[in-house]
Amino acid sequence: MLTDFLAGPELQAFAIACATSFAASALADEGMWLFNAPPLKQLKEKYQFEPTPQWLEHLQKASVRFNSGGSGSFVSANGLVITNHHVGADTLQKMGDAQHNYLRDGFYAKTQADELKSTDLELNVLMSIEDVTARVNGTVKPGMTSDQASSARNAAIAAIEKESKEKTGLRSDVVTLYQGGAYHLYRYKRYDDVRLVFAPEQQMAFFGGDPDNFEYPRYDLDICLFRVYENGQPAKIDHFLKWNSHGPSDGELTFVSGSPGKTDRQLSLAELADTRDRYLPYVLSMFYRREVLELAYSARSFENARKARDDLFGDQNNRKRYDGYLAGLLDPQIWSALKAREQKLRDAIARDSKFKSTISAYDRIKRAQAEIAKDAPLYNYLEQERPITIGYRGPRALSGNLFKYARLLTRAIEERAKPNGERIPQFRDSARESLELELFSTEPIYDDYEILRLTDSLTDFASQFGADNPLVQKVLAGKSPHARAVELVAGTKLKDVAVRKDLYHKDAAALQAAHDPMIDVARLVDGPAREARKIYDAQDEIKKQAYSEIAKARFAIGGASSYPDATFTLRLSYGRVRGYEQDGKQIPAFTDFGGLYQRSAEHDNKPPFDLPQRWIDKKTNLNLTTHFDFASDADIIGGNSGSPVVNKANEFVGIIFDGNIQSLVLDCVYTDTQARAISVDSAAIIEAIRKVYDASALADELEGVTK
Amino acid sequence: MLTDFLAGPELQAFAIACATSFAASALADEGMWLFNAPPLKQLKEKYQFEPTPQWLEHLQKASVRFNSGGSGSFVSANGLVITNHHVGADTLQKMGDAQHNYLRDGFYAKTQADELKSTDLELNVLMSIEDVTARVNGTVKPGMTSDQASSARNAAIAAIEKESKEKTGLRSDVVTLYQGGAYHLYRYKRYDDVRLVFAPEQQMAFFGGDPDNFEYPRYDLDICLFRVYENGQPAKIDHFLKWNSHGPSDGELTFVSGSPGKTDRQLSLAELADTRDRYLPYVLSMFYRREVLELAYSARSFENARKARDDLFGDQNNRKRYDGYLAGLLDPQIWSALKAREQKLRDAIARDSKFKSTISAYDRIKRAQAEIAKDAPLYNYLEQERPITIGYRGPRALSGNLFKYARLLTRAIEERAKPNGERIPQFRDSARESLELELFSTEPIYDDYEILRLTDSLTDFASQFGADNPLVQKVLAGKSPHARAVELVAGTKLKDVAVRKDLYHKDAAALQAAHDPMIDVARLVDGPAREARKIYDAQDEIKKQAYSEIAKARFAIGGASSYPDATFTLRLSYGRVRGYEQDGKQIPAFTDFGGLYQRSAEHDNKPPFDLPQRWIDKKTNLNLTTHFDFASDADIIGGNSGSPVVNKANEFVGIIFDGNIQSLVLDCVYTDTQARAISVDSAAIIEAIRKVYDASALADELEGVTK
Repeated sequence: MLTDFLAGPELQAFAIACATSFAASALADEGMWLFNAPPLKQLKEKYQFEPTPQWLEHLQKASVRFNSGGSGSFVSANGLVITNHHVGADTLQKMGDAQHNYLRDGFYAKTQADELKSTDLELNVLMSIEDVTARVNGTVKPGMTSDQASSARNAAIAAIEKESKEKTGLRSDVVTLYQGGAYHLYRYKRYDDVRLVFAPEQQMAFFGGDPDNFEYPRYDLDICLFRVYENGQPAKIDHFLKWNSHGPSDGELTFVSGSPGKTDRQLSLAELADTRDRYLPYVLSMFYRREVLELAYSARSFENARKARDDLFGDQNNRKRYDGYLAGLLDPQIWSALKAREQKLRDAIARDSKFKSTISAYDRIKRAQAEIAKDAPLYNYLEQERPITIGYRGPRALSGNLFKYARLLTRAIEERAKPNGERIPQFRDSARESLELELFSTEPIYDDYEILRLTDSLTDFASQFGADNPLVQKVLAGKSPHARAVELVAGTKLKDVAVRKDLYHKDAAALQAAHDPMIDVARLVDGPAREARKIYDAQDEIKKQAYSEIAKARFAIGGASSYPDATFTLRLSYGRVRGYEQDGKQIPAFTDFGGLYQRSAEHDNKPPFDLPQRWIDKKTNLNLTTHFDFASDADIIGGNSGSPVVNKANEFVGIIFDGNIQSLVLDCVYTDTQARAISVDSAAIIEAIRKVYDASALADELEGVTK
Repeated sequence: MLTDFLAGPELQAFAIACATSFAASALADEGMWLFNAPPLKQLKEKYQFEPTPQWLEHLQKASVRFNSGGSGSFVSANGLVITNHHVGADTLQKMGDAQHNYLRDGFYAKTQADELKSTDLELNVLMSIEDVTARVNGTVKPGMTSDQASSARNAAIAAIEKESKEKTGLRSDVVTLYQGGAYHLYRYKRYDDVRLVFAPEQQMAFFGGDPDNFEYPRYDLDICLFRVYENGQPAKIDHFLKWNSHGPSDGELTFVSGSPGKTDRQLSLAELADTRDRYLPYVLSMFYRREVLELAYSARSFENARKARDDLFGDQNNRKRYDGYLAGLLDPQIWSALKAREQKLRDAIARDSKFKSTISAYDRIKRAQAEIAKDAPLYNYLEQERPITIGYRGPRALSGNLFKYARLLTRAIEERAKPNGERIPQFRDSARESLELELFSTEPIYDDYEILRLTDSLTDFASQFGADNPLVQKVLAGKSPHARAVELVAGTKLKDVAVRKDLYHKDAAALQAAHDPMIDVARLVDGPAREARKIYDAQDEIKKQAYSEIAKARFAIGGASSYPDATFTLRLSYGRVRGYEQDGKQIPAFTDFGGLYQRSAEHDNKPPFDLPQRWIDKKTNLNLTTHFDFASDADIIGGNSGSPVVNKANEFVGIIFDGNIQSLVLDCVYTDTQARAISVDSAAIIEAIRKVYDASALADELEGVTK
């Protein structure tokens, strides 16, 4: 499954520079384009297609961002939203309990009264984009140091967001594009009353499990349907996608509208080398560790397995995904291409005297990255180097929901006392509602599972810095990791939402007076954590400025007709439905239901290739030649999970849910030789909903059948 | 399961100093005693039991060491040997193929003609012990440097082993005890025609799987039976254990005779801190990584799962075991006790002017350990820091059987050209037969699995040192880890035993001329690997000498009545069958068959709590009150797996197979508060063999029933 991304302003810090292509055919279907700078020229030249402004506006406003880390779209006038099962899984997990295993069993609300409210899900719909580059950059005065410039820009951004929020009532985020090449204000309509309508069994959504993940051919019904409510009623939606029950044809031009999380396409070679040799091994070591921990815990009982299900799923997915990315970076052919791409630009910069000072930007990035690497252990264990996954569970040293709440409370109160423009982005006024949604989540807390995670992360912390390290000793407070975890989990009152709400509205003195052990430990590590963040941010600012100089030179040399690296904001991609060749064999674009039953039979219907009983019983109902999943060469990445695939008529023909193994290098470079986006076909969805799940009311709503 | 240990002379380097007790009750059942220095005084005082020399000789010669890493014993006059299933698992894996899944299905040879010859199993029976301390130390002349002293001792040891081997025909190993406090020559009768007689399904041997591993109560039939042959006929055995079909009673004194692998009970606090903060996190990272790799591979198909089964089993076992040891070292109560133990001895040394120079030994160890830590990355990736597990699969950078063969061939030929006394111990004349058994193993080689492991280990290597590291680049030869692994595995001829045999008898020039890519890469890394080994060995020698000085001071101060740290040589432990208290609850010493069925039912008979169909069908045959597993406070550690448990009459009453979670600190300290050794009861074994497996001929042979 595509890796999902943390939402929120935190992510913006990681957007970098604009991208160019390589390793793709001459007129490749490359690019994650801005809706206010769509690839009109490319579409006209290659496909003789000219989307109108109305066409674009409709698709934009029918697109929905899941702030838990994915994409989706409206598919009915009554607020129905479709996304991937693996995007909804986080919510299915949080809504479950010992009696309700929605991930395993699936869910269908026959009537609206049966629809289940999610614990803390926020959906965003992009309503407008405004270029605020001049205002942001205008605050930077000649003679300012880079620190001063950074503060001035941050203050301007915070002010713009606050103003806009107050004026329009919309969530307002200033997005940094092309690394300071542009700043755009994105205004979103927020929905936070989101209710579950339908989910298949995870077994069907993720048929083939880890072995088939990021592979093709595939047979997955990776979908999940929610409904947004306003004032207790289903929201009325003007822009929703018309359902096409036939799906796309082979070779057909399709569009993908979603929020790709983060790409590295303009990272310097030095930073990519650090990603390859340090960062990816680091995150992989974390995922290996977590996967083993969660598997061992899950094997103890069915209930444990239920509690850890979504974490395990996410960690396995990330492990496979980053493993693939690392393999790409260790491939000398890819590396040479990346090297050549940088060299070409460096040569062009060197030839142009206008950019005399720019050439040093590469060295500045390299030095700053080296400083970040030095700071990384503390930063990673106490803060987090990059937001990489959904389901943020506190920093590596202190994993778990309870510490997360303690951290959010401590920081929220401390940051609130500062001027809006000087706060960590997550705590700005404009982000308040999102913060409160997270902090006051009704997600269940399991003591044993919290203790497990905290014990393991404290052990990991002690291993990283040594048990004699003074900070480690302070955190452990003279106890073993396990004893300390038990003490913290048993002693904290933060399990109770009311306690969190109460403390949130108080001040730092009250927080201290609470003597809550989890808050005390959050306060204890806050100083060193902020210190590590400060070092990181300072070096990151140096990198940003250097990347921005390079971006400007690139514009000047190659023209600005390009798309920025992904920033978990709405983008338009396009591509044809296409198979590919692998090991001399042609992999067709489509799979069908018949293939599903065949693959299951090949594995004796054993996990992870087992079919839910319902699918065995209903086999005869199904047209086995119905297209199930399909491949296309659209340019997508994690965060695009759940993105609608539409045809030229703007009809819903499928939903993105994965990329194949060959697509795992799309982080740093686009290629269409073998890399493919993988979608569920709209034909399969409607067939399954009607004939396997007997959810005719839902199918009727999707197909616009009025009774 | 107890972690098993690599056999062979390599291990001797890790034996260190003698041990004293703590955290155990006044007259604790502590100690892994030498058969030539048994705990006669303790047994007499506490238990009024005085074993005779004949009693001891009988037990010694009925005990069998499995050089794949465990213990066992003779249980019939016709060469029948019983050990743990998890000790035999390595062999069951190697003997299997796509049509024969002995691990899953078990095995029973109804007649001797059906007994299956193992691929490379070597068993050793200790025939005599001779103190050669004077001769070894006598070669060290006054004024020698520590390097010269070390060389002199090594040469003396090699000469003694060679002489003894030539004179007696027995395998002859000089064992370093009390870290130079003593050198003993151990002479073994070797058996290398070892045939499989009986194994239950792994499901029953390891019922409860990873969740129940190292836990108690348990319900495991962790046994496996082999028969040793000489000249194509079952060997005639004088010393075998008489079977007791009733098992022991609660509180009964029992003895354990086996080969504990390695203990750390006399490590200095500085070295233990390095174990805690660096070494254990390092090995755990390796086991996490391997476990994930093997699980992901296994999930793809039943055949993959079969091929990786024993590796996965071993890596999960090690992960849980080292995780427990680390938790022990991170427990401040345990750490304080270790600290106090060292401080007490340091104070005593400081008070005695005779040992003026000894006090600096602690600092010398600390400095040497710091050098070892610096050298560790290269040493670990190209050699191996400590032999920790069965199934050695090459160094971390180059994992797999094919590289292992290339390494053994390269080294065997190079070392052969040196004088016997200067060789790496594994390649001394006295170890030749064991080396050849390993090198000419008929273990099946699976290309895809070799490629998987090699790809992963090369990726790990590149991540550890960086892809731009010159040695990494040489090893990868301009290819991605996967492409390089494919090239090496496809190109090598070492899969063929005949090729290995042919090359083994040639010289270095012939090896070079073979142009075998796997041999070429082994030759390529041999220089840096030996360099890393040299640094390691030099520092290790400094440590040895320092530990030896401390050991002498301890003898002088506290008397010599103690046992040395474990060295994977035969030891005698003793203890009572005893339950323990945990979380205020009394855990009884015994479990029974009834408990097995109950535990399986609690988990809906789902893996890893599922029963083989045979056990479900035969339930009514069984006396459900039959004792199944039992706990005792004998002092054991990895390597003791499969050790016979005997009563005062020297009858077989059980077989050690595990320790509980609380026993995982026994590496560094004995405690009998909760730590327990776990055994299968002889009553359960005979009941299961007769009534579930219908193996009456085998049961008759065990019970000495003549027909």
